[in-house]
Amino acid sequence: MILGGGFAGLWAARGLRRAAVDVVVIDRQNHHLFQPLLYQVATAALSPAHIAAPIRKVLSRQKNARVMLGEVVGIDAGARTVSIAGQQPVAYDYLIVATGVTHSYFGNEAWARHAPGLKSVDDALEIRRRFLLAFERAELQGDPEKRRAELTFVVGGGGPTGVELAGAMAEISRMSIPRDFRSIDTRTARVILVEAQARLLMAYPEDLSQRAQRDLERLGVQVWLNTRVTGVDERGVSTGAERLEAQNVFWAAGMKASPLGAMVAESTGAAMDRAGRVMVREDLSVAGYPSVFVAGDLASLMDAKTGEPVPGVAQGAMQMGAHAARIIWREVAGVRGGVGAPATPDRPGFRYHDKGILATIGRGKAVGVINGVHVKGMFAFQVWAFIHVLFLIGFRSRIMVLAEWIWMFFFFDRGARLITGQATGAGEPGTIASATALAVGRGPGASGHEPAPAESAVTTSAVR
Amino acid sequence: MILGGGFAGLWAARGLRRAAVDVVVIDRQNHHLFQPLLYQVATAALSPAHIAAPIRKVLSRQKNARVMLGEVVGIDAGARTVSIAGQQPVAYDYLIVATGVTHSYFGNEAWARHAPGLKSVDDALEIRRRFLLAFERAELQGDPEKRRAELTFVVGGGGPTGVELAGAMAEISRMSIPRDFRSIDTRTARVILVEAQARLLMAYPEDLSQRAQRDLERLGVQVWLNTRVTGVDERGVSTGAERLEAQNVFWAAGMKASPLGAMVAESTGAAMDRAGRVMVREDLSVAGYPSVFVAGDLASLMDAKTGEPVPGVAQGAMQMGAHAARIIWREVAGVRGGVGAPATPDRPGFRYHDKGILATIGRGKAVGVINGVHVKGMFAFQVWAFIHVLFLIGFRSRIMVLAEWIWMFFFFDRGARLITGQATGAGEPGTIASATALAVGRGPGASGHEPAPAESAVTTSAVR
Repeated sequence: MILGGGFAGLWAARGLRRAAVDVVVIDRQNHHLFQPLLYQVATAALSPAHIAAPIRKVLSRQKNARVMLGEVVGIDAGARTVSIAGQQPVAYDYLIVATGVTHSYFGNEAWARHAPGLKSVDDALEIRRRFLLAFERAELQGDPEKRRAELTFVVGGGGPTGVELAGAMAEISRMSIPRDFRSIDTRTARVILVEAQARLLMAYPEDLSQRAQRDLERLGVQVWLNTRVTGVDERGVSTGAERLEAQNVFWAAGMKASPLGAMVAESTGAAMDRAGRVMVREDLSVAGYPSVFVAGDLASLMDAKTGEPVPGVAQGAMQMGAHAARIIWREVAGVRGGVGAPATPDRPGFRYHDKGILATIGRGKAVGVINGVHVKGMFAFQVWAFIHVLFLIGFRSRIMVLAEWIWMFFFFDRGARLITGQATGAGEPGTIASATALAVGRGPGASGHEPAPAESAVTTSAVR
Repeated sequence: MILGGGFAGLWAARGLRRAAVDVVVIDRQNHHLFQPLLYQVATAALSPAHIAAPIRKVLSRQKNARVMLGEVVGIDAGARTVSIAGQQPVAYDYLIVATGVTHSYFGNEAWARHAPGLKSVDDALEIRRRFLLAFERAELQGDPEKRRAELTFVVGGGGPTGVELAGAMAEISRMSIPRDFRSIDTRTARVILVEAQARLLMAYPEDLSQRAQRDLERLGVQVWLNTRVTGVDERGVSTGAERLEAQNVFWAAGMKASPLGAMVAESTGAAMDRAGRVMVREDLSVAGYPSVFVAGDLASLMDAKTGEPVPGVAQGAMQMGAHAARIIWREVAGVRGGVGAPATPDRPGFRYHDKGILATIGRGKAVGVINGVHVKGMFAFQVWAFIHVLFLIGFRSRIMVLAEWIWMFFFFDRGARLITGQATGAGEPGTIASATALAVGRGPGASGHEPAPAESAVTTSAVR
């Protein structure tokens, strides 16, 4: 049984396609989401359907796999069952928990309504809605000070997501939309990227951090380093002594494990790290429970070779999912009749193969490390585009996304500049809520929002 | 000033592009929506961005046009002002009201939450969500009777929208998704189209109604004619004495004018028809108020030549918008200094040019009348596809939609099978709500929904 249809869950399911097991994938979303491109939905470049594929569809030819849409509410590692809301507990032989992590407000959950994060399709559409509405409100705003607050965009967190969001927002305000407005000059919008550390992209080498910062600043982004956000409210952001009036704050900082991590820990006694991720053994199983694996971002593991933590990136998740699947397949094939037999000490340990890292900053701008070589600028951007299109699931998505990108590259035109979802929250005809939002700054649709945690559940298990 | 960025409003704005006027388009959505293809979003074939374009973007090169996102809350035809929520009243010289109509529950507004209609992007995403969730719930449902209710889809209203929705839903359940499910045979899903009249597509000739019915029945749709829906609740539909257990009801019947119609009537004393549409003079202006026009579906008008009502279709709306613009342009150019001068009796009357009607039923199936010739089957389908792609706004949308259609035609694969928006209504992390929905049949996200009326506001006016 696999909990979570992300990269780790899907790669685990695929890794078991020839194994003599029944694979059950449980997720609370019906779609696998290509997270690395989610910021492009938030910034109106792509539609959700470009980067999301129904998990059922992805696994439809895998005869031994079935997909359940459901919310996992409990794990009993002793009884080997998983409880799903509204269903009978489901028994498993092997369990792979791969429900990932989400951003974190460092205990200040009240910030969430003012500073949405980016983990699900709904999150991305909410960010897109707020971002586009800001310009609409500014166009109607007569008061210069309020207009300036409407046109101030703050992104908290200078990791890849924050860098990509800030870069795209600056690019849109400078290149895509100036001609569409009459009262405001959208090029005067301020995009401020706030990072608590001394440089952006802490996971990258220092020269690339500096290059990313310079590229962002050229796009018009203000980069505030060594700056910790101490408060977020409906009118702006506080950073220690300073106060920034901003009607638009987005969150891309911190890390918090899916609640499934705590469920695993509670049931198995496994240790969690500070972010709530589950500490796993070298083979990705939980100490004392060889039939329970944790894979992907939810797993906390030191790489035996480098002594560094395995980074929480897509390629790591794919490799972990495939690794757990390989162990299960081997044991099921080798120990016939011995399902659930105690783990043999000869299980292979997980080794992370770092193929490289890449982050985009804007049109024709990216930084990264590939096979130890630092790449930047247009070349890095092209490699980035090539790799991301390659890994998109489904041939159809690949050509559609490529077409959108080529169009956008040449015409600066973004295909998905729609403000939707205005009816959320109030249960009233949507656009009335939105008109109110327009008048008073923030409407019920906006203020009632809390980003959904990113987890999703999948257990692949089985065997006979 | 133009209220509404639909076909009538946009065509009016474009018709004034060379006139010496300031054009203001007010809408409560930021996008123009290509309504004729909205059912394809509801049935997961297209993404919203394929058929919607930002009004700003459409008018960005028209220097004399500006766009305001806002909700019209009042019209004062005497003072020549329009009130927008949260804004100062805006003065106009000429006003074109083109905010359209929506479906109607015939006074049973309580049905709305159980039987969403299809007018906005949000409506379409809600229908898509419910339609796709039904199969997910059925896959987990052990009780055969409940499973049957989950797999029963009722569409109320046998007009073009109802026919297109029912046809697409049957096609998906028969062709696109059977392989993706393990416990259920999606081909057993019942799609029932309920129509109060004696035949489908009342606006079409009788032989085409019969052809449409036969095509639908071949796809597996059950067509119930002469059947009036007398009740809709959370468990199904009542039709007089009969009771139909169905977890999925969609509404495509009736017609109700946008509330702006009543505002115009109140301020000008104009008569309204039973649906709330404004009776206009032959030149599309309101009796006694030559500076106020009503165009598009919101206008109620007999065609002087045929004696028939002008039908509420996209081409009629475009023609009306252009007609009103032409009158304004002429008067502004001719009667210099005489803005708002009493209407000259020589204003041309509106003549509707019927270029044909077309409705699709499914893959390779359509019916229609073009220049008096009845067309059906694959030929009609090809004409339909050609015309609809041609009229899509923006070259980008055209090629993308064409690509999606070609793909779908050959592979039966739909590109946008995403269940999103689960967080609506509750203000809680979305997927928890959805999991509950899964367990108990309908979740808070689903039940809190009320479709937004379709109106949108635009006044184009101006002149100096």
